[in-house]
Amino acid sequence: VNAPEEPGVIERAEIIAVGTELVSSSRAETNSIFLTAALNELGIEVVAKAVVRDDVDDLAAALEESLRRSHLVVLTGGLGPTDDDLTRQAVARVLGKPLVEDPVIVERIRQRFASRGWTMPEINRRQALVIGGADVLENTVGTAPGQWLRATGVPGGASCAGRLVVLLPGPPREMQPMFHTAVFPRLRGLSGEFRLFRRIVSTSGRAESSVEEKVRPFYERWRQQPLPVAATILAASGQVDLHLSTRSADATAAAAALDRAVQDLRDRLGDDVFSTTGDSLEAVIAALLTAGGWRVALAESCTAGAVTARLVNVPGSSAWLERAVVAYSNASKTEMLGVPARLIAEQGAVSEPVALAMAEGIRASAGTEVGVGVTGIAGPGGGSPEKPVGTVVVAVVGPGAAARVRTVWLPGARAQIRASTCQLALDALRRQLQAAGAE
Amino acid sequence: VNAPEEPGVIERAEIIAVGTELVSSSRAETNSIFLTAALNELGIEVVAKAVVRDDVDDLAAALEESLRRSHLVVLTGGLGPTDDDLTRQAVARVLGKPLVEDPVIVERIRQRFASRGWTMPEINRRQALVIGGADVLENTVGTAPGQWLRATGVPGGASCAGRLVVLLPGPPREMQPMFHTAVFPRLRGLSGEFRLFRRIVSTSGRAESSVEEKVRPFYERWRQQPLPVAATILAASGQVDLHLSTRSADATAAAAALDRAVQDLRDRLGDDVFSTTGDSLEAVIAALLTAGGWRVALAESCTAGAVTARLVNVPGSSAWLERAVVAYSNASKTEMLGVPARLIAEQGAVSEPVALAMAEGIRASAGTEVGVGVTGIAGPGGGSPEKPVGTVVVAVVGPGAAARVRTVWLPGARAQIRASTCQLALDALRRQLQAAGAE
Repeated sequence: VNAPEEPGVIERAEIIAVGTELVSSSRAETNSIFLTAALNELGIEVVAKAVVRDDVDDLAAALEESLRRSHLVVLTGGLGPTDDDLTRQAVARVLGKPLVEDPVIVERIRQRFASRGWTMPEINRRQALVIGGADVLENTVGTAPGQWLRATGVPGGASCAGRLVVLLPGPPREMQPMFHTAVFPRLRGLSGEFRLFRRIVSTSGRAESSVEEKVRPFYERWRQQPLPVAATILAASGQVDLHLSTRSADATAAAAALDRAVQDLRDRLGDDVFSTTGDSLEAVIAALLTAGGWRVALAESCTAGAVTARLVNVPGSSAWLERAVVAYSNASKTEMLGVPARLIAEQGAVSEPVALAMAEGIRASAGTEVGVGVTGIAGPGGGSPEKPVGTVVVAVVGPGAAARVRTVWLPGARAQIRASTCQLALDALRRQLQAAGAE
Repeated sequence: VNAPEEPGVIERAEIIAVGTELVSSSRAETNSIFLTAALNELGIEVVAKAVVRDDVDDLAAALEESLRRSHLVVLTGGLGPTDDDLTRQAVARVLGKPLVEDPVIVERIRQRFASRGWTMPEINRRQALVIGGADVLENTVGTAPGQWLRATGVPGGASCAGRLVVLLPGPPREMQPMFHTAVFPRLRGLSGEFRLFRRIVSTSGRAESSVEEKVRPFYERWRQQPLPVAATILAASGQVDLHLSTRSADATAAAAALDRAVQDLRDRLGDDVFSTTGDSLEAVIAALLTAGGWRVALAESCTAGAVTARLVNVPGSSAWLERAVVAYSNASKTEMLGVPARLIAEQGAVSEPVALAMAEGIRASAGTEVGVGVTGIAGPGGGSPEKPVGTVVVAVVGPGAAARVRTVWLPGARAQIRASTCQLALDALRRQLQAAGAE
């Protein structure tokens, strides 16, 4: 269905990670992430990834499926010397090629062992088995060489002549240098003149479905442009990112198409857009503080330092972060921030007056231009009918005259409420700084 | 080739994660990791995992391939309300079933929006499309319901009658509770009598390779027991976990074998073991504080609130966390914690006397039994020949007479140094509390 028309130009790739331990473990498979980024850089789109166990039938089935669909299949792992390293066998079978021991590789592996005073175990001979017609990719870090070959056969009835199959070792520290030195340069010549260009538009303050509904009318228009722009929406903890991409041989045209799409989103989403460069919310805040010459101090309750910790993700934060307090108990709110005990008694610790007093208190004691106060009920305990779990108040005072305070009700359990509150507090700070900068 | 003989008993499963953003991004796909662990618990082996983009043909091809091989296919993602959420369509096509809008689900989604004062966007109706014959799995956290169905058709020529297909939402916070409440109990009745039993032994204070070297002699012995125990080592930010597992139909024998292995590790690793139940370091600290009737306050510099935020991961933390300060500037260390300016000038902000003074200062102002001080150079700037980037000091005072202070040099870049410092500070607090509890 998706059969590529021109086997000579590599546009679509798939990655197959091989290893029973990868399927069964609680560890994330990371080779495919590295390879996806590297292939995308070349304008090659990765359309599927698979993780299969060390089973020659499963491996062959996965490879056949991928060859039907894509110009390039990269397999990682299963090149070791043991019985359950079966990638070579599976590829040879699928492509209908012989598997022949290469004496040069045997010698190279033998020397590798010898250089450490060891004798090569006989099983390592398996690593010298080369698929007929394959180019050998030297492994400078380990014993398993990689292989690069063009399919010529017609397995499974589907034509896959000209498809590329690349076998790489599983350990990242062997795979990555091999990819850089032996695979990347070869692919550059084959991936055609097209490259993938991307933009990320990051928004905060609006739910995913709401962003989606607002921007959806653009999708069709972008798709039908002479240079189509594809969009994907990605949401996590209150941040919704739109990933835009276009494939082109013309970098200027691609940039222009993406610029227009970014502008469409800016026009439609207004202040909800906080970055069009992939910068994090904290990086945007750091830039605003630096530009305004402002310093900030924070008073956190339910987030317990997590808002401050996120700000400090940005290197150089000591230039604009003066201090913060985690005023967890009511006594600490009074003693450290000067929030009147009566105010807490009358309004409750989770209230707009208290959040404002926390922000004012920390700003005054730190002597900064900006103060942030965050208080809320993260649960599971502490909720009431008037103030259920998920009630959160965020206040920002300074650098301009007007303070900003907002109460929201966040869904979810403790961890999610705390993460969303962090995002909400940072976004309130960002909006306040932008407003002050525009004054 | 691997056709299961008894479709009634679920022994082999595959996981298909759906989403263009999962294929193309540099983010790891995590749902399959959660699902693998959960399925293994039921004695179900995961034999393959795939990540496919939002393309109905690719999705259908992956599902057909998986159905040919395995009794159970779990698909995550692609249940959203938008055009590119195509999992429902692909499954319906492969299994030859209709797709029908369920008015009860439409109503449930509508109410979900209404409860927040919002109107349901019309596109959310797509989430109410149910595959013919499927059971609907309620989503208590989001709008997309899951689906559970048995294949009856004969797609692709291969018999897959009786195979199970489960559709789950992509966001982990929706998928995980749905799996626990609706999928796990059903699968329990359908998987065989063998179960996987696990233990996690968590350690802190020792590098992965050092733990590995100490415990390696056990591996062979455990493997050759009548009931073999397998071990995997997993390390992240200063915490090294040993995952032990055994497969058995006899729960008592399995527990005994695991108990013996855990005891082997305890004997070998001593105080470095902080938990044998999978509890987090912060949960262990919370239990120690509660048992001792102690309260804690923290003074953080380079970690900027992250240590406190981790403690507050534990529900009920307000019972033992009084307050914390992020004393980022030197002035704030003096003003908020009473650290003499001269001490900072003479010893440097990153020094054992200053860390101790920070811990003492916060303990005194908070009136708690325990105080923690953390200071360090996370980089990239701020290092010197005497105190390079990665120099970190952690101090704990109370609840016993002796204080604990330690300087270490941590490798890595800013983010890694900060994460390791958090772990180090929490581990120092844990050891201090354990020592005081044993007094």
